Amino acid sequence: MASIREVAQEAGVGVGTVSRALNGSGYVSPETRKKIEKAAKKLNYTPNELARNLYHNKTGIVGVIVPDLEHPFFSSLVKHIEMELYEQGYKTMICNTVGISRREQEYLDMLERNIVDGIITASHGLEVEEYQKQTKPIVSIDRDLGSRIPLIGCDHAKGGKLAAELMLEARRRKVFLVSGISPNVMANDRYRTFRQILEENGVVAVLQEEMGWNIFSWEAHYKMAEEIFRLHPDVDGIFGSDLAALACLNVAQRKGIRVPEDLSIIGFDAMAPSGMVYPQLTAIRQNVELLAEISVNALLDMVEQRKNVPSRLILDVEIQRGGTV
Amino acid sequence: MASIREVAQEAGVGVGTVSRALNGSGYVSPETRKKIEKAAKKLNYTPNELARNLYHNKTGIVGVIVPDLEHPFFSSLVKHIEMELYEQGYKTMICNTVGISRREQEYLDMLERNIVDGIITASHGLEVEEYQKQTKPIVSIDRDLGSRIPLIGCDHAKGGKLAAELMLEARRRKVFLVSGISPNVMANDRYRTFRQILEENGVVAVLQEEMGWNIFSWEAHYKMAEEIFRLHPDVDGIFGSDLAALACLNVAQRKGIRVPEDLSIIGFDAMAPSGMVYPQLTAIRQNVELLAEISVNALLDMVEQRKNVPSRLILDVEIQRGGTV
Repeated sequence: MASIREVAQEAGVGVGTVSRALNGSGYVSPETRKKIEKAAKKLNYTPNELARNLYHNKTGIVGVIVPDLEHPFFSSLVKHIEMELYEQGYKTMICNTVGISRREQEYLDMLERNIVDGIITASHGLEVEEYQKQTKPIVSIDRDLGSRIPLIGCDHAKGGKLAAELMLEARRRKVFLVSGISPNVMANDRYRTFRQILEENGVVAVLQEEMGWNIFSWEAHYKMAEEIFRLHPDVDGIFGSDLAALACLNVAQRKGIRVPEDLSIIGFDAMAPSGMVYPQLTAIRQNVELLAEISVNALLDMVEQRKNVPSRLILDVEIQRGGTV
Repeated sequence: MASIREVAQEAGVGVGTVSRALNGSGYVSPETRKKIEKAAKKLNYTPNELARNLYHNKTGIVGVIVPDLEHPFFSSLVKHIEMELYEQGYKTMICNTVGISRREQEYLDMLERNIVDGIITASHGLEVEEYQKQTKPIVSIDRDLGSRIPLIGCDHAKGGKLAAELMLEARRRKVFLVSGISPNVMANDRYRTFRQILEENGVVAVLQEEMGWNIFSWEAHYKMAEEIFRLHPDVDGIFGSDLAALACLNVAQRKGIRVPEDLSIIGFDAMAPSGMVYPQLTAIRQNVELLAEISVNALLDMVEQRKNVPSRLILDVEIQRGGTV
């Protein structure tokens, strides 16, 4: 197939002129336009996908930014986002930030540079201000990037409430909360509500361990779990992310602590590995499939200017009843 | 609008440097990048990536096709591929085929349509012939698509051998092999070698269960595990994918079968969940990080015509010593 360059040579004009002629974006004299059309016909030139995209000023590509694709929540989220985008005629470009905020910035730049039509971000590295500068379509999962960027996430406060109620039912007295540290993230509602309900109900001690944000390794969680049992051997309840909960379950089993008889453990997300351990982890489940669908629809509503998008979209959570409470 | 040349002049650097800086396609010192950004801002220059790609007949995008991004092996593979591509100035477009061969075909078409510069495929749905028609850069992970498409995978035969030797050391007599069914995939070497070594060493029964290819759900594996124990309550060894092995471990624990005293279980891949269960799964480990790196380098050697690529690249495997043998 002929390239645009060959067409330009044949017509005796510059590539930019051919591009403008295709684009309709700038002035091309009728005479020149005719020469270009003749050259294109002679060389059997059919503008390729890139040229067509250039013409429509649209790429059909959506960027998805996650901190770590290896984390079960993010791999499931991206899978379902990709499937939903595909259904709606878009392709998915993926970016692992693994805690490197420079990469998030580069993705935002891609929006400006017309490589992607929009971005779904579930990463938390970059300053909120960098997002707020953007005028092109972005939706954010679980992190508040200001009122102009739709925020989509599950009902973390309800998640914290459900977990606290399970702890109360199991009559736990010394409960450990493993939380993350990051401002502006919806998960903070979960920690706050969990803690508050337990304290209001006279649970003797609610301890808290803060894992650094963007720490997803099993090793880091395992080490943290060992520390909890070393410093607080009498802990009788633990609530944390799936990874934190699974690490605590693993350490408890190794130490011969009976779960759930002497220790209740509750995870958050209820992703695949939580169902692979024995006993299965009791956990608060986010509906990742729905989260993906809603995020894609909100973004494409903006990209295609189909309709206005609410600034906050909150999804329900439920309990996965396993055998650890 | 200012041209890239004017930006280069203003910044006092070459056009290539401006292109690299704005493309993210090669190294530019932070200082120079700042100068360029300042110049671009001053001149109100917004590069049009699409136009540039059209000109270079290159997109800087690589397509990665996997069957199921939610599967721990594929999510880890794609993570590391994306990170390696990024290091080399490329972006990653992801496609979940979830067993739909139409989607693989569409991705191949994207190669022709210049949306991607090359494809790394780890999916097995489409006919080999469809791949063989292609002339543009493709590398295949674990599936033989003919001698023109580089095949990259781990040493499955050695994996089968290591697993068989572990079973022999543990003096297992009635061993179950959970395999997949698919022609042309390297995993078949693993099944063959495992079976052969055990039979040669007089293991009384080597049973085999074939899971449909592209079946990755926990439920399907759990059901299969229940069937194994129902039909063969005296099985004393099981070797399968991590998912199959984890499902068998889970069912065994529920039934009160002692692992490893009365039953040895060995997985293959040794992905994250295999380290989360208690006891940790003994498994044959593929080096996914290296697999990703080698695959990316082979593909980009072809895309950029840097050098010739061997038609077969085989990586070593090792034993993850857990507590299930």
